[in-house]
Amino acid sequence: MIPKDHPRYRSLVARERLARCAREGIVALEGLAAHGRGEAFDYLIGEKTTKSAALAERTAAAMLLSARHAVISVNGNTAALAAAEIAALQRVSGADVEVNLFHRTEDRIEKIAALLTDHGARVLTGTPERIVPLSHDRALSLPEGIGDADLVLVPLEDGDRCAALRAMGKAVITVDLNPLSRTARTATLTIVDEVTRAIPAIAAACSTLEPGEADRLITSLDNTYLLQAAIDEIRERLGHALE
Amino acid sequence: MIPKDHPRYRSLVARERLARCAREGIVALEGLAAHGRGEAFDYLIGEKTTKSAALAERTAAAMLLSARHAVISVNGNTAALAAAEIAALQRVSGADVEVNLFHRTEDRIEKIAALLTDHGARVLTGTPERIVPLSHDRALSLPEGIGDADLVLVPLEDGDRCAALRAMGKAVITVDLNPLSRTARTATLTIVDEVTRAIPAIAAACSTLEPGEADRLITSLDNTYLLQAAIDEIRERLGHALE
Repeated sequence: MIPKDHPRYRSLVARERLARCAREGIVALEGLAAHGRGEAFDYLIGEKTTKSAALAERTAAAMLLSARHAVISVNGNTAALAAAEIAALQRVSGADVEVNLFHRTEDRIEKIAALLTDHGARVLTGTPERIVPLSHDRALSLPEGIGDADLVLVPLEDGDRCAALRAMGKAVITVDLNPLSRTARTATLTIVDEVTRAIPAIAAACSTLEPGEADRLITSLDNTYLLQAAIDEIRERLGHALE
Repeated sequence: MIPKDHPRYRSLVARERLARCAREGIVALEGLAAHGRGEAFDYLIGEKTTKSAALAERTAAAMLLSARHAVISVNGNTAALAAAEIAALQRVSGADVEVNLFHRTEDRIEKIAALLTDHGARVLTGTPERIVPLSHDRALSLPEGIGDADLVLVPLEDGDRCAALRAMGKAVITVDLNPLSRTARTATLTIVDEVTRAIPAIAAACSTLEPGEADRLITSLDNTYLLQAAIDEIRERLGHALE
């Protein structure tokens, strides 16, 4: 039990939730460390959606609605933190949802699919094939899902897979709190925001895009600008950190 | 298995090591997330010992050698990452080693003590009492260890315990990669460095302090300066991050 008088109570409770999901086999133990890295960067951007992240989220909505075939690729951390949010985004965007894991086991795939389904998502099923140019089981994807997609939304993604999807000619949107990560720098569009803030913001934007706005957002997408804005935000906050 | 061609191979291997220690009951699952936070800040300081961290490590050596009774407080993450380094520091500094856990169980205490002993450390044993002013089992410490110490070295410490030890009038040295954390700001001396770099650096300094140097280092200790130097280092690196 974490004492309620602990100043980092909220953050520790989120960690406990992920730890519980790790015990249940939803989250890989390595995913807990990855979450910690995200926590650190969230702290540095002020644990809020910045102006540039809000622009990125609106652009993500435009891309999802304009895609021929958009797929949301969900891993253990995303399912543990944002299963309901993913389901809601699927409803408004019409995107497919596919479970795709770095530390892949059939048991984890099934548990994560069940968790998503419990929260109202429709999860793609089928026989995975080695589609993505990666070593080991990380190559496995569904031919009718990520294999066919022209746009993949991969929250909390590994840099390797992001690069491999890009090399396949797909547009990639990622949610990554570290604006310096390979994932962040490789993606077509990077949302530097915490996943439970980012996914609902994309869903909200799907419902409120005005006529012509989607085209304008997509035409003016400049991912380097978005990353630089996030870095500037962190530098600015660090400038008076000890005050 | 992590593929060797993965660009973050080293970092992922360290995570796997901690994950393995978590499976063995050495590391708390919550400790994996804490490790990830450290990874993020290590990345931001360039994964090297900065000049100001080296000064902090030399000052730590001076304090350890000048203390009436120094105790190194070891938790699961520290034992998993740096058991041999802790044993070596104990040899050159003469400090006691006590196992002290945030997520305390007798099973974990015993496993961590065994791991430290296997690596050559002498670990204090005895009957713990509620010594530190904290809620729950986090208060438990040894009367003849942390209870009697005038100086406690607590690598990777929680902010609450750091503050509680300070409130008891003890000097506290911490190793914390986050220069903004409560621990970093509450400690008497904060070493902003990765623990497997920091502990050997303190041990090396113990053997090479020159006559009069210890007194000079202790007299000129300015923890706010050390934290600001770490923050400046991060800001500087972020300034040309996307180049």
